[in-house]
Amino acid sequence: MSTADVAMRRCEELDRFSAHPTRLERVYLSPQHASVNRLTAGWMESAGMRTWQDAAGNQYGRLEGRKRGLPALLLGSHLDTVPDAGSYDGMLGVVMALAVAERLRSRMRELPFALEVVGFSDEEGTRFGAALLGSRAAAGTWDDDWWDLRDANGTTLHQAFLEFGLDPRRVGEAARRREELVGYLEAHIEQGPYLEAADVSLGLVTTIAGARRFRLTVIGEARHAGGTPYPRRKDALVGASEIVLAIERLARDAGCIATVGRLEVLPGAVNVIPGRADLSLDLRAEDDARRDAVWVQILAEITAGCSARDLELRVVETHSAPAMPCADWLQDAIREGIAVTGDTDPMALWSRAGHDGMAIGATTDIGMLFVRCFDGISHHPGEAVREIDVARGLDALEAAVLSVARRVEAGVKAPA
Amino acid sequence: MSTADVAMRRCEELDRFSAHPTRLERVYLSPQHASVNRLTAGWMESAGMRTWQDAAGNQYGRLEGRKRGLPALLLGSHLDTVPDAGSYDGMLGVVMALAVAERLRSRMRELPFALEVVGFSDEEGTRFGAALLGSRAAAGTWDDDWWDLRDANGTTLHQAFLEFGLDPRRVGEAARRREELVGYLEAHIEQGPYLEAADVSLGLVTTIAGARRFRLTVIGEARHAGGTPYPRRKDALVGASEIVLAIERLARDAGCIATVGRLEVLPGAVNVIPGRADLSLDLRAEDDARRDAVWVQILAEITAGCSARDLELRVVETHSAPAMPCADWLQDAIREGIAVTGDTDPMALWSRAGHDGMAIGATTDIGMLFVRCFDGISHHPGEAVREIDVARGLDALEAAVLSVARRVEAGVKAPA
Repeated sequence: MSTADVAMRRCEELDRFSAHPTRLERVYLSPQHASVNRLTAGWMESAGMRTWQDAAGNQYGRLEGRKRGLPALLLGSHLDTVPDAGSYDGMLGVVMALAVAERLRSRMRELPFALEVVGFSDEEGTRFGAALLGSRAAAGTWDDDWWDLRDANGTTLHQAFLEFGLDPRRVGEAARRREELVGYLEAHIEQGPYLEAADVSLGLVTTIAGARRFRLTVIGEARHAGGTPYPRRKDALVGASEIVLAIERLARDAGCIATVGRLEVLPGAVNVIPGRADLSLDLRAEDDARRDAVWVQILAEITAGCSARDLELRVVETHSAPAMPCADWLQDAIREGIAVTGDTDPMALWSRAGHDGMAIGATTDIGMLFVRCFDGISHHPGEAVREIDVARGLDALEAAVLSVARRVEAGVKAPA
Repeated sequence: MSTADVAMRRCEELDRFSAHPTRLERVYLSPQHASVNRLTAGWMESAGMRTWQDAAGNQYGRLEGRKRGLPALLLGSHLDTVPDAGSYDGMLGVVMALAVAERLRSRMRELPFALEVVGFSDEEGTRFGAALLGSRAAAGTWDDDWWDLRDANGTTLHQAFLEFGLDPRRVGEAARRREELVGYLEAHIEQGPYLEAADVSLGLVTTIAGARRFRLTVIGEARHAGGTPYPRRKDALVGASEIVLAIERLARDAGCIATVGRLEVLPGAVNVIPGRADLSLDLRAEDDARRDAVWVQILAEITAGCSARDLELRVVETHSAPAMPCADWLQDAIREGIAVTGDTDPMALWSRAGHDGMAIGATTDIGMLFVRCFDGISHHPGEAVREIDVARGLDALEAAVLSVARRVEAGVKAPA
C-alpha cells in the first residue's frame, strides 16, 4: 500500500465520525470532534510524535528536530466539515501532513526545526457561524465577543467549551508565539476547476482571498396567508428573495463571488405569511477593495428594496478577513517541492476559498499547495481526488519541507 | 363574569398547552393536543355533556335533545394551531360553541335535535402539511395515502397515530353519517380586515374559498461557495427566489392570493452553494376557475425559469379543496342570529381562509359566523378580539341555533 493510499483510507476512516448516519457533518466541539482528535492522535503517536489537544480543541503532534525545543515548522489543515460534506476538504491536508511526518521521522536529526502536525478544530464555521475559530485560537487572535455566539440549538460557544471539557478561561493558552514557529504549510484540495482544466496535479497558492460574512435579517409581519390582502402584506420572504437576486446580480457584474447559503423563514408554516427571514451572505474577491466596493452597492440596493416594501432590514457582519498572501520564501519552497514531481513551472493561483492559513498567518508565514480535485466539486459528498495526485502531493510536500530546511540553514528565513 | 369573558379566559387557558415555552404551537397528535382535549372534555362534562375523543383525535361533547338519539346540530371549530400562533383562531369557535351549549342546556327538552360541540384536531396542517385531517376524518373523506405523510422529524402520520394511542385501522370510525347530523355551525375570527373597516362586530359567511397547496422542490448542486465560478453554479436558492417573486407577481395580477410560507435550504451552510430548496405554495381565489388558471401560469413561468438555470423543478400537490358554499338555510339562520344583536342587515363576505367546514361540508350542510378581529391579524401572537364582539357572537350563535330549531320543526330543513 502506497503512503497516498494510506492517506486516502485515513480520510475514509475519519468519515465514520459524523453527526448523521447517512451524511458527513462534523462540527466544532461535537462528540465527533473529540472522536477524530483521538483517532488522529493515535496515528500521530504511532509515528513517534508527542501529542496534545490544545485549549481550543486543536489536535497536535510533534517530532523534535536536531535538538529538543527548536521552533517548529507546522503542517496541517482542519478536521471539521460543512453539513453533508465530502471526505477531503481539510482532512486530506491533515493526513498528508501526517504522512510527511512519517516519512521524515527517521531524518529529523538532520532538520534545523521540529515538525508539528495540526488538525485544526474549526475552519468551516458550520456550528457557530464564525469561521476559523480553531486556527484563530492558535494564532492568538481569539475574540471574547465570540463566547456569546449560539449554535442552532441556542447553545453558546462558552457552554459548548464546557460541555466539550475545555475551560473557556484558558483559551489563551492555545495561542502560538511567533518565535515558536518557522512557518505553516498546508496541502488542500483546490475546490475549484482550474487545475483540472489545465490537466495538472498540483498548484502553488499565491494568496488566500478574504471573505466577509454577514447575517441579514428581514422583519415583516406574520399574518394569515388567506385573509391578508396584498396591500396589507409585509412578507419577509418576498423581501429576502429580492435580496438573494440583487446579491447575485451585483456580485456577478463586479467580478466577485457572493453566496447566500442559508435562508430561514419564520414562522415557516404553509398558511402564514413569513414574518421574518434570516439570510447569510458570504462575499469574496481577489482583492479586498473590490469586495468592499460591491458590498457598499449591495447594502444600498437591499436597504432601498426593503424600505419600499415596508420591511425592516438588520445587518450584522459576522466575519471579516483580509486577503492573506503566502510568503514569497514559502512559495519558493513549495515550487521546489512541486518540481520533484516533474512540474518545474507549476500553476500559480489564488485561493477563492478561505483556509486556516488566513488565521495562523497572523503569527507565522504561510505557504499552500493545492491538489487537483474532481470537477471542482467541494462541500459536497461528491468530493474526489486521484491517488496519483495525492502521491505527487506527498512528494511535493515532503520536498518542500526539506527546501524550507535548506532555506533556514542558509539564513534565507531564520526562525525568530 | 359574562359568558364572553369566560370564553376568552378559556382561550388563555388553552394557550398553556404549547410545544414551546414562549410561543404557541399545538399540532396534531402532540402531547399538547391530548392535553387540550382533556381540558375541553372537562368543560364539556361540567356542562352536562357526554364526551368522547373519536378515532382521529377530535374531541366531542353531546347534549341530548327532546328525546335521546336525535340527529345532532354540530357546533365547533379546531384546537390545533400554526407555529407562533394567536389565541383565537379555532379555539374561540370551540369555546363559543361550548358557551352556547351551557346557555341552552336547560332548554334542550325544547329542541328537535341533539347539540354537539366538537374541537377538531387538525385544521391547520402544521405538522403533516395536509390540512383538515381532523374534520376530514369526521366527514368520512380520509385518504389512506396520508398514512405516509411525514412531519419535520420524519415521523409518519401512521406512527404518530400509534404514539398518540390511536389505532390507524379504526380511523374510519371517526366518520359521521349524513343522517346523524342536522348541520354544522362555526364561529371564527375573521382573519381579515373587512369587518373592522366596516365597523361591525359580526359577519355572515357566504362561501369558503378553496385552497390548493403545493410542495415545490428546486434541485441544484451544492458546491463550495468560494471555489465555484458563476458559470458552473446551480444555486437552488437563487432559483427559489425567482419562484417566490414570480408567484407574487402573477397571483397579484390575477386577483388571487398566493403565499410561500415555508422555504428550506439544504445543506444550509454559509459557505456552501444551496443544492436544494423546498418551498410551500398556498393558492386561493374567490372561485376555483380563477385560482386554477393562475396556477397554470405560475407553473409555466417557474418551469421555464428553472430550466434556464439548469435547475430541476419538482412539483407535488399536497392539498386541493374546492370552494365550499354555506347552505342558504343556515345562512338564513345565522342572519336571524346576528339580527338579535341589532344588526338586521349583516355584512356578507366570503372566507379567504380555509375552515373545517370545507371538510365537514362533504357530509352535512354548513354555516359560518365571523367575529371581528383586531387589524385583521391572525396566525400571529397579536391576534385579538374584543369582549363585546364575543358577547354579540354568543348571542348570535345561540339565536342561530334556535332559528335552526324553528326551521327543522317547520320542515324548512328536515334532518335526513
